[in-house]
Amino acid sequence: MPIFSTKANFSKMNQDAFFMEQAVLLSQRHMEEGQGGPFGCIVVKDGVIVGRGWNSVLAGNDPTAHAEVMAIRDACRHLGTYQLDGCAIYTSCEPCPMCMGAIYWSRPEKVFYANTREDAAETGFDDSFIYDELVRPLEQRKIPMIAMDKTEALKVFRLWQEKENREQY
Amino acid sequence: MPIFSTKANFSKMNQDAFFMEQAVLLSQRHMEEGQGGPFGCIVVKDGVIVGRGWNSVLAGNDPTAHAEVMAIRDACRHLGTYQLDGCAIYTSCEPCPMCMGAIYWSRPEKVFYANTREDAAETGFDDSFIYDELVRPLEQRKIPMIAMDKTEALKVFRLWQEKENREQY
Repeated sequence: MPIFSTKANFSKMNQDAFFMEQAVLLSQRHMEEGQGGPFGCIVVKDGVIVGRGWNSVLAGNDPTAHAEVMAIRDACRHLGTYQLDGCAIYTSCEPCPMCMGAIYWSRPEKVFYANTREDAAETGFDDSFIYDELVRPLEQRKIPMIAMDKTEALKVFRLWQEKENREQY
Repeated sequence: MPIFSTKANFSKMNQDAFFMEQAVLLSQRHMEEGQGGPFGCIVVKDGVIVGRGWNSVLAGNDPTAHAEVMAIRDACRHLGTYQLDGCAIYTSCEPCPMCMGAIYWSRPEKVFYANTREDAAETGFDDSFIYDELVRPLEQRKIPMIAMDKTEALKVFRLWQEKENREQY
């Protein structure tokens, strides 16, 4: 993966457009290769591209292999951390709930996006449906969510709280 | 990974409790190893465990390595598909929005859970915070979401729609 700085060559405004162009170019290239849907994403820190991802759901038989998830994982691998402090994410489309969750867990500084969830829905992707589902009560979901006895599971939560030197993330 | 059938030995009711116990045992074992938080998950098809996962955010430097994401990826790898038709997911805790998104994209038949999002919040995990964020307008999010020009990105969506033999997932 080429890692290069654009600091010297671009004004801040052009930098954002340049990075978004990179994300969109990834979305096109790998969609045309048949890896998955038309989505691309890059992660930038201090003007340097530190992570890249594209949808590879089909090629990888992996429903979690969305562009943002792949770019976040790539960036964390390169940076040796599970937190994207001070990073910006450029994604060719507004993130779906799964990717938005991944973004909150990785805590970048900001997110730039181009296409919207409505554009995605019109193009045949279920993002809007999932956003709608997540606010329904658990007992009204399309995929049944069944509560079970939590006695043993709660004990493990207590063990975590009592764990010495645990790293809270 | 041991794959074994419990069909012969358990009534349906005991099966669900058995599978949840497996998920909870994974949550404890790998938490104690220091892999990550106290979360475990298994995927079951036709009474057979086809995928297992546990939180390995810390060990893997991967903020997306939640138990459910790992179990779904493991099951898809074993089954050679990106869809979990006819599968049940047993997770030691109500899924966070990222994992719930992964569940909707992988389309299992149902989900069993033990601990709730409130239990997770009390134990120091941000699930509830993220659920709250996802329903806020994009311009009011804690992590700024910045819309950019979408001319080029939309063109790639159109190319996808025009793509011959595309696999809609």
